[in-house]
Amino acid sequence: MLKVYLSGEIHTDWREQIVEGAKGLDVEFSSPVTDHAASDDCGVAILGGEENKYWHDHKGAMVNAIRTRKGIADADVVVVRFGEKYKQWNAAFDAGYAAALGKSLIILQQPEHDHALKEVDAAALAVARDPVQVVQILQYVLTGKLPA
Amino acid sequence: MLKVYLSGEIHTDWREQIVEGAKGLDVEFSSPVTDHAASDDCGVAILGGEENKYWHDHKGAMVNAIRTRKGIADADVVVVRFGEKYKQWNAAFDAGYAAALGKSLIILQQPEHDHALKEVDAAALAVARDPVQVVQILQYVLTGKLPA
Amino acid sequence: MLKVYLSGEIHTDWREQIVEGAKGLDVEFSSPVTDHAASDDCGVAILGGEENKYWHDHKGAMVNAIRTRKGIADADVVVVRFGEKYKQWNAAFDAGYAAALGKSLIILQQPEHDHALKEVDAAALAVARDPVQVVQILQYVLTGKLPA
Amino acid sequence: MLKVYLSGEIHTDWREQIVEGAKGLDVEFSSPVTDHAASDDCGVAILGGEENKYWHDHKGAMVNAIRTRKGIADADVVVVRFGEKYKQWNAAFDAGYAAALGKSLIILQQPEHDHALKEVDAAALAVARDPVQVVQILQYVLTGKLPA
Amino acid sequence: MLKVYLSGEIHTDWREQIVEGAKGLDVEFSSPVTDHAASDDCGVAILGGEENKYWHDHKGAMVNAIRTRKGIADADVVVVRFGEKYKQWNAAFDAGYAAALGKSLIILQQPEHDHALKEVDAAALAVARDPVQVVQILQYVLTGKLPA
Amino acid sequence: MLKVYLSGEIHTDWREQIVEGAKGLDVEFSSPVTDHAASDDCGVAILGGEENKYWHDHKGAMVNAIRTRKGIADADVVVVRFGEKYKQWNAAFDAGYAAALGKSLIILQQPEHDHALKEVDAAALAVARDPVQVVQILQYVLTGKLPA
Amino acid sequence: MLKVYLSGEIHTDWREQIVEGAKGLDVEFSSPVTDHAASDDCGVAILGGEENKYWHDHKGAMVNAIRTRKGIADADVVVVRFGEKYKQWNAAFDAGYAAALGKSLIILQQPEHDHALKEVDAAALAVARDPVQVVQILQYVLTGKLPA
Amino acid sequence: MLKVYLSGEIHTDWREQIVEGAKGLDVEFSSPVTDHAASDDCGVAILGGEENKYWHDHKGAMVNAIRTRKGIADADVVVVRFGEKYKQWNAAFDAGYAAALGKSLIILQQPEHDHALKEVDAAALAVARDPVQVVQILQYVLTGKLPA
Repeated sequence: MLKVYLSGEIHTDWREQIVEGAKGLDVEFSSPVTDHAASDDCGVAILGGEENKYWHDHKGAMVNAIRTRKGIADADVVVVRFGEKYKQWNAAFDAGYAAALGKSLIILQQPEHDHALKEVDAAALAVARDPVQVVQILQYVLTGKLPA
Repeated sequence: MLKVYLSGEIHTDWREQIVEGAKGLDVEFSSPVTDHAASDDCGVAILGGEENKYWHDHKGAMVNAIRTRKGIADADVVVVRFGEKYKQWNAAFDAGYAAALGKSLIILQQPEHDHALKEVDAAALAVARDPVQVVQILQYVLTGKLPA
Repeated sequence: MLKVYLSGEIHTDWREQIVEGAKGLDVEFSSPVTDHAASDDCGVAILGGEENKYWHDHKGAMVNAIRTRKGIADADVVVVRFGEKYKQWNAAFDAGYAAALGKSLIILQQPEHDHALKEVDAAALAVARDPVQVVQILQYVLTGKLPA
Repeated sequence: MLKVYLSGEIHTDWREQIVEGAKGLDVEFSSPVTDHAASDDCGVAILGGEENKYWHDHKGAMVNAIRTRKGIADADVVVVRFGEKYKQWNAAFDAGYAAALGKSLIILQQPEHDHALKEVDAAALAVARDPVQVVQILQYVLTGKLPA
Repeated sequence: MLKVYLSGEIHTDWREQIVEGAKGLDVEFSSPVTDHAASDDCGVAILGGEENKYWHDHKGAMVNAIRTRKGIADADVVVVRFGEKYKQWNAAFDAGYAAALGKSLIILQQPEHDHALKEVDAAALAVARDPVQVVQILQYVLTGKLPA
Repeated sequence: MLKVYLSGEIHTDWREQIVEGAKGLDVEFSSPVTDHAASDDCGVAILGGEENKYWHDHKGAMVNAIRTRKGIADADVVVVRFGEKYKQWNAAFDAGYAAALGKSLIILQQPEHDHALKEVDAAALAVARDPVQVVQILQYVLTGKLPA
Repeated sequence: MLKVYLSGEIHTDWREQIVEGAKGLDVEFSSPVTDHAASDDCGVAILGGEENKYWHDHKGAMVNAIRTRKGIADADVVVVRFGEKYKQWNAAFDAGYAAALGKSLIILQQPEHDHALKEVDAAALAVARDPVQVVQILQYVLTGKLPA
Repeated sequence: MLKVYLSGEIHTDWREQIVEGAKGLDVEFSSPVTDHAASDDCGVAILGGEENKYWHDHKGAMVNAIRTRKGIADADVVVVRFGEKYKQWNAAFDAGYAAALGKSLIILQQPEHDHALKEVDAAALAVARDPVQVVQILQYVLTGKLPA
């Protein structure tokens, strides 16, 4: 069984496409909380409000780290998706974290970011352009079968 | 002696300010190659040209990784600077890599990036706003003296 | 599945509250032996009596360490509860041990101990004030759902 | 050469006694910042004030951790002193942290704390009652000579 | 249960002989993709063609590494088969990789390669001459029974 | 579930006593091959005879190491029994190996060997005198119940 | 300072070329014993002869491993040279061993071996064609200067 | 420079022979305290007497472990000498401890113990019969020169 953590962009349905495409394969997926509002507010919603926005964010990021660290630590493969918008520094941070732990890294990104992502890609075993390719990699890795 | 790796933005003189400010302290600094052109072209300049821009970048990123990995692996403290411009995914990648190795992380960034960097900051032991603060931290850590 | 070790204070029912509150979540709890008398005497009760109280205590602490070390080593999350009374150095020891192993740490304590626990809290991903908050964190980490 | 980190109580001169007694031995000592006021305020003094006392303490504890972690990580031997007063949870935390890293641990404490410290003592290679004994251990470990 | 990774030569049926011979034993086998064409082309077939043969090979080798690394990392025992033909540097690479991770190594090779493989054999716990011996080792390790 | 490896002396039924006594507890036991003749001859019986007795022994010891290393690596607790006779250096070797891996160590031996085993005992969490005590420790560690 | 281990082919002067070319750089080189006869016979020459050629080779390979393992373990960078002749399985073994330890790997080989070495190259940060390129990489990594 | 720890038998001058023979080589030797009386009594001499002989021994073994663990942890090569007399379980324990840490192990022992030491020898890179052979190995490993 292959454990795969799906990190990065949360505004499109790329995770659903991969999970759907991988049906029938012996894969267990995990991911961060992708409900943006819950992810931003989890710290203060549970542990009490903060007047200072910095600490509001900090408490949330710390609680989310409980889930993220376990997801990456348990994974055989970490897929990191960089989307069109936003800074996405947490995605690059996860990629570096996973690389240092020796996880197999698959980066999912469009060619216009190739230059900006060259150090991240250099740590990866595959750079994919769409979720179908990620599914095909997982299928090949598990079954040895190439796409028809 | 404290070994400090200075990662991230390469277009301002923040490294020089820290190195200058830390004169007299028992610190050994290291950093990536900060000559942008050399850093981009080192792979093909040494190992032969590539027609495909992706592989041009890839060869350079791999050669730079020899220096970067040693810098981070040897460091006690990793300072990661996020500047005003560019994606800077390599900076966030270095931060994640350093965090996974258990290095003490200091992030140097302006408040307008606080929200975007909240996951990175959550892994840090200090978030500084200017190079002087980084120097003051190094001075305090080594000598126990606070700024006057 | 999330493995959670519940360390620290043994004179109130905080463990039961958390276990009860987390019913239905995919969590496996473990904890030290919480029968105070058994915990104190296990060494001499099994391995033979000691005249010297120091060695009496020592033999017990060593036998308890078989359970404690496994509990922490296997855990994804270590919750450490500091109560109103006693030195509770074993709780702080467990927190340091868990932190060095890179476990996600949740500290459960009242505000009057904030200053005394600041180094311990600084290694934690959450500082909770009551067992309900711990349950809410576990629920959020596992399901992404915030408390209503 | 033996690297020794001196952790714990900061209100008596036990560190000075050990350093003085070990003169002539091939030992390198390190320790936390023992200026209580500087240690409490280093975070806000360098990185900016906080209205909330909790975050005031937190920023300081994080900056101090840069020094503490390096001291323990570099050490062969960690001596942890428990004094007469205060909770001293940071001392017990350091002991747990050092134990998990496999450091040789020497606990320095009075007999009235034996029962409360039994789990900490159980992870130690020596329990000393005064700084002279610590010096004698260091001398024996380095030279094979027992006290006259 | 014993996890066994079968590395190396892919042109004879030695893997099938071992798997067949080990029926009834509590062993879980894994192996690289042994379809030579698929293994060579998996990179470009999934991630897009390359004009340069070097990068064609490189992309394939990277995708195959996702499977290989997991196979070795999860294994208790790594069997590496050196056949009659080809350079088989990937087999020797796997042996070195497995040795550095502390895996139990069994080398399967003919006597004419003894001198060339002496450094590889020196890292192994057994040097077998045919698949039956590998099966007998697995049987003995799991059941304590020697071949009749 | 607790994984327990039973190392050492193979001429009395101490393993059977422990396994029998622990019935009903959530323990999984493993052990070396205890058939003395098979253990001595496994190398040559499977991999071919040796004229030189040294290499005869060596081949057997290597094959046995496949089982021993896995048993210790997988274990939470390693029990090492020293009997009345023989050098039993392999038992002491296993104890050192297990100690370096941070396993919880229980030594089972008679008082007449206390002085000779003092370095081994110093690495253990319990020194038991008979198999019943080992069972009682396992029962206590798993259930918190002391012997009646 | 950069520690570089030079592994592989011992019949040409590539090591001398690199050491000569790197004069003036802050590099410390190490390598296996390159006296072929001494390397083959060291085991029996020191520890006594063997009638069986297999054990003759084995004793030598084991003694050489004392030097090889230290060289690789201490290195920041491992350069592995594959020449025109011989099986060179020990070179590929060293590459795998170094890769698993996370060392920066530079492979030095001619294009005709690209396909056979694709798995080894896939673990490397640079594939060089002649010793001058290795020197240029070391110079760039240490000084940031590209070849004129 | 090669760091070598000399473990085991303390009643003959084998250590002196090796240190003397290795003069001029770049080796740094360390060893346990070889003053038998001091080694037995160091615990109670420094930390206070014990009525019970078991705890008398225990305190000494623990203090000696501070030196032993550092010696082995720092070493590249661990030489373990088994002599004619005594149980020498601490020697075998050190060998197991060193093996688990991946140290290069040289065993120094007479042929009459070959069978009893076969598991220990199986973890070693060399089995020497006299101190001169150990010196010759060190010389070869450091200089590539065989004995004349």
